[in-house]
Amino acid sequence: MPASEREKMAAGEWYCCLDDALDLLRRQARLAVHAHNTLPPDQRGALAPALRALFAGTAQDVFIEAPFHCSYGINIVLGERVYFNAGCTILDSGRVTIGDRTMFGPGVQIYCAEHHRDAALRSQGIEIARPVTIGPDVWIGGGAIVLGGVTIGERAIVGAGAVVTKDVPAGVTVVGNPARIR
Amino acid sequence: MPASEREKMAAGEWYCCLDDALDLLRRQARLAVHAHNTLPPDQRGALAPALRALFAGTAQDVFIEAPFHCSYGINIVLGERVYFNAGCTILDSGRVTIGDRTMFGPGVQIYCAEHHRDAALRSQGIEIARPVTIGPDVWIGGGAIVLGGVTIGERAIVGAGAVVTKDVPAGVTVVGNPARIR
Amino acid sequence: MPASEREKMAAGEWYCCLDDALDLLRRQARLAVHAHNTLPPDQRGALAPALRALFAGTAQDVFIEAPFHCSYGINIVLGERVYFNAGCTILDSGRVTIGDRTMFGPGVQIYCAEHHRDAALRSQGIEIARPVTIGPDVWIGGGAIVLGGVTIGERAIVGAGAVVTKDVPAGVTVVGNPARIR
Repeated sequence: MPASEREKMAAGEWYCCLDDALDLLRRQARLAVHAHNTLPPDQRGALAPALRALFAGTAQDVFIEAPFHCSYGINIVLGERVYFNAGCTILDSGRVTIGDRTMFGPGVQIYCAEHHRDAALRSQGIEIARPVTIGPDVWIGGGAIVLGGVTIGERAIVGAGAVVTKDVPAGVTVVGNPARIR
Repeated sequence: MPASEREKMAAGEWYCCLDDALDLLRRQARLAVHAHNTLPPDQRGALAPALRALFAGTAQDVFIEAPFHCSYGINIVLGERVYFNAGCTILDSGRVTIGDRTMFGPGVQIYCAEHHRDAALRSQGIEIARPVTIGPDVWIGGGAIVLGGVTIGERAIVGAGAVVTKDVPAGVTVVGNPARIR
Repeated sequence: MPASEREKMAAGEWYCCLDDALDLLRRQARLAVHAHNTLPPDQRGALAPALRALFAGTAQDVFIEAPFHCSYGINIVLGERVYFNAGCTILDSGRVTIGDRTMFGPGVQIYCAEHHRDAALRSQGIEIARPVTIGPDVWIGGGAIVLGGVTIGERAIVGAGAVVTKDVPAGVTVVGNPARIR
């Protein structure tokens, strides 16, 4: 039996996002994201049960300020004490792994999804998913963007508004667009 | 009869945004945006009727993830299968025309509005609106900003987080702040 | 009696954000922000009474489009006719003073909070707050980021998407990441 679009997505191959099974997953994610973002304000930050159930793995004590957005949720793995400030977005068509104690400023964006560069294929919904791996004790500054395929080493610092297009070694600080070691 | 502020805005002349007629338009836009952003989550993405009614022109099958924001709405024209991911903002004091099959990542910003550079005039609400025209089959990466007066040619790609300050030819890729051809 | 974490924060010294008193202040801010962001759409822009009560000082005629986000609120001082477009975020662990008639585009971010650069101390919640002072008649373009410790002089213009890491003299225009005088 040929691989499904979901299987191709998970395998890091080109797949078609215009697919009923993937569409259903995206609808489930919208419901869980909505449940999280409409928690009563005195419960804000606590992870909504629907979103916790969706994630691939989540430590007990993560804290995600509302609003938060993710496209599938099923590919997100969060370590202990991971903190997202308000307005973060994860397009998790690929696996997104965040290490223990890593902190995200407001409005940080992680984009695993990459459309095809050929316009004809792009218009047919052809895209690919690349994983993002962020080590423990990392600080991602507010408004930063991390592209698919990137690995960020432990204890690294990403400056506010940086656009991270390639790997960041452990312990270094990167800033700018595109992000460079400072 | 002298031109109204709305007429001056539409004509691409300096106008005063502190104007009752323009304020009413902005209030109507807030209501329509609110209707869209509070659709039940199982209807998310479908265009709220109030927002469709506001737009200058919209193909049947556009998809706008919530939340979305626009300042007037009445100057927005969307082609077939246009897709906006979550958190996009259009300040559409000028005409904003988006071609068929063009896709926007999360958090893309289009700013037609430009305040006067003279602080005294700026404090009186003097501003100008420049149109934005984006061709068909374009991919605007997440977090990108497109300034007023810009035309982006068909099949172009704008990198995530790029700040587009001048025209982008058809088929090219631009990245960075300010955006440059890669 | 040794200084409390709140007192150290206010004094511009290193403090621990994992503190019951600071946590209570952040919860109060979430409630006030929620009240503002869920105002009926026909009242959007008017400052919610709960948010006005929280701010350190606010002129009568400020206008803050929803959604808006701040971390404490108690350190924000807004002059006459200050305008925030939709989606602005202020991490006001430090004092944030905005002059009369200053205008913010959509999605502008002000970050007073700075985590410790030493990963071990950062994981213990050690951070510092630096004030941001923005003069009167300033125009901050959409999507711009202003870091803690920055002063922006009167009548200055910050370009859309700029990342402001150091002081901006009065009357100049800065653009880019990092922002430089144009």
